[in-house]
Amino acid sequence: MPTVFPEDSVGLVSPQTLHFSEPLLLACGKTLPEYQLVIETYGELNATASNAVLICHALSGHHHAAGYHSTDDRKPGWWDSAIGPGKPIDTRKFFVVALNNLGGCNGSTGPTSVNPETGRVYGADFPVVTVEDWVNSQARLADRLGIQQWAAVVGGSLGGMQALQWTIAYPERVRHCLCIASAPKLSAQNIAFNEVARQAILSDPEFLGGHFQEKGVIPRRGLGLARMVGHITYLSDDAMGEKFGRDLKSEKLNYDLQSVEFQVESYLRYQGEEFSTRFDANTYLLMTKALDYFDPASAHGGDLTRTLAGVKADFCLMSFTTDWRFSPARSREIVDALIAAKKNVSYLEIDAPQGHDAFLMPIPRYLQAFSGYMNRISV
Amino acid sequence: MPTVFPEDSVGLVSPQTLHFSEPLLLACGKTLPEYQLVIETYGELNATASNAVLICHALSGHHHAAGYHSTDDRKPGWWDSAIGPGKPIDTRKFFVVALNNLGGCNGSTGPTSVNPETGRVYGADFPVVTVEDWVNSQARLADRLGIQQWAAVVGGSLGGMQALQWTIAYPERVRHCLCIASAPKLSAQNIAFNEVARQAILSDPEFLGGHFQEKGVIPRRGLGLARMVGHITYLSDDAMGEKFGRDLKSEKLNYDLQSVEFQVESYLRYQGEEFSTRFDANTYLLMTKALDYFDPASAHGGDLTRTLAGVKADFCLMSFTTDWRFSPARSREIVDALIAAKKNVSYLEIDAPQGHDAFLMPIPRYLQAFSGYMNRISV
Repeated sequence: MPTVFPEDSVGLVSPQTLHFSEPLLLACGKTLPEYQLVIETYGELNATASNAVLICHALSGHHHAAGYHSTDDRKPGWWDSAIGPGKPIDTRKFFVVALNNLGGCNGSTGPTSVNPETGRVYGADFPVVTVEDWVNSQARLADRLGIQQWAAVVGGSLGGMQALQWTIAYPERVRHCLCIASAPKLSAQNIAFNEVARQAILSDPEFLGGHFQEKGVIPRRGLGLARMVGHITYLSDDAMGEKFGRDLKSEKLNYDLQSVEFQVESYLRYQGEEFSTRFDANTYLLMTKALDYFDPASAHGGDLTRTLAGVKADFCLMSFTTDWRFSPARSREIVDALIAAKKNVSYLEIDAPQGHDAFLMPIPRYLQAFSGYMNRISV
Repeated sequence: MPTVFPEDSVGLVSPQTLHFSEPLLLACGKTLPEYQLVIETYGELNATASNAVLICHALSGHHHAAGYHSTDDRKPGWWDSAIGPGKPIDTRKFFVVALNNLGGCNGSTGPTSVNPETGRVYGADFPVVTVEDWVNSQARLADRLGIQQWAAVVGGSLGGMQALQWTIAYPERVRHCLCIASAPKLSAQNIAFNEVARQAILSDPEFLGGHFQEKGVIPRRGLGLARMVGHITYLSDDAMGEKFGRDLKSEKLNYDLQSVEFQVESYLRYQGEEFSTRFDANTYLLMTKALDYFDPASAHGGDLTRTLAGVKADFCLMSFTTDWRFSPARSREIVDALIAAKKNVSYLEIDAPQGHDAFLMPIPRYLQAFSGYMNRISV
């Protein structure tokens, strides 16, 4: 069996499941009595454990960030463009750790898991988790892996918020923070889109108060709608225009309410339907809530500079010109606060038509800058 | 009973219902055997009928554009800031006609009307109507009112599309076209948002294939969700930030999935719920479809300049800096085509933080420019 993986791929990878039996106190005041985290690692941890990089995922991400689970896989992990031998996060140099966060639906403890205290699936009873909670659970993961200090914590979007939170909560444990296409907190408009997504799920009759799994149903329509809304905000107006324009699904217009007239409608419906078969509705709610709640400066009267006063990491921020979910201005808020706090920060605004999703894409200038920064990290 | 209306109000107004018994052939190929239009008029038609102005409404608008229906009315008509004595559309000079379009739910024939051919409420059987159909029905309305030529046809957003279509379909019948915060056609992103709104309605179990009215139910959740999505796109990110920021609904965060945490969530839910009690879901579907279909240049190979070659009207276009639904760039597409077609066109981009909704608001620079243009129209 000849492997068919590209040379710059980490190749065949397997997830591992780690159990944590010490209770975790959450920001909401509740405690997770025990939990598990599913992770993947790429590359080798060096003798002094100085070359470890943590990958934090965004809303619908997970531990499978790079490589392939089998030779039959149609696609590699979600950030394969950035992780691998010779890629920005070079696995010949770095030991890379990617995990599925608590509350997720890809193997880590979350709403689809069994609550050990009741013997029943958590469903909507899974506690609300925050970026702070995730970072605390990731610190325990680092302990377990023998990593006292990350060479870098890296993430885009909601993942960038985790990277930022790491530098605030564990300043001694992060040497470099790469915070990409992110924001120091959501705007009212960001929250509004999340609320529409949540209402779509909550109002689906098959949501059943979040206990649909026990009843053997799925709130497919609500979750699909939520994804459709989200998807629009991940793409730029230009990217959608480029991809679909006003192209018709059929040769001519049907002029009725039932037909799908335009390609973009067909695409969105497909995205929604496909997503609803592979993602958990309660997890979606939790992830949007974690986004809404993130606001580290709120503990310092809204002063981000003061919030960042104690961070020790060096920072790399990157944003994309057509990202209107977390526009360059949002990254600059962080950059400005870091400069005011006299921290080391590199910032690059990348001209890219793809919108928010650009951070996942193999854009040459982006990957070059990303590589440049990662190459200068000493391990 | 002392009237309490402001001096620059048209005061107490009453709608009229006009019946049209001649069948109307629609763009979809179907025919409306007969129909009625509800209108309001303000001011007096002069002897030569040269001072008539038609107001075209946007997605959720109607015939009640100015004044009050009773002394108890909390609010005047939807464009009261622009219509009245001394206002941009000065009712001392102009005879103003506002209507509810076909397919609407405010008295004109639409999905909530009885189909004369079946004796049952139309519901989802009401045919798809287009901007072209509306303009054709408005031309018959003009005939009925004895108006051979409008001094001006005026509209914002979807209303601006009707104003533009008037100049194309009936070049001899429009002297001035005021097309505000509009676009020559929807972008893929615009269509995408409309599709999310439609899917929200169509997937509500109480939509019942569009025949909910006969069953005595309302797809409240779907219509509310549709409105929430729409509402976000009517406001700018800045306007939402200014109005709500991250203000909390209660004193502190609840950290659960049930609670409304932020003011903006509460506001959006209210907007959705309130709208769902006063608007018809089938009408909402029809209005979004009319938006999607509008693309007058498609009959000319996408060439807007050629499309506008035969227009005779003078044009005034206005757009608003923070409008991201129909951004200034979309208005400039029309302006550029008009210039290339050697037509008379004035264009003003107004610096306003309110987003798309700005066209409905009493913004001094906007109303001044609007007045300036209207004042120069000879009648």
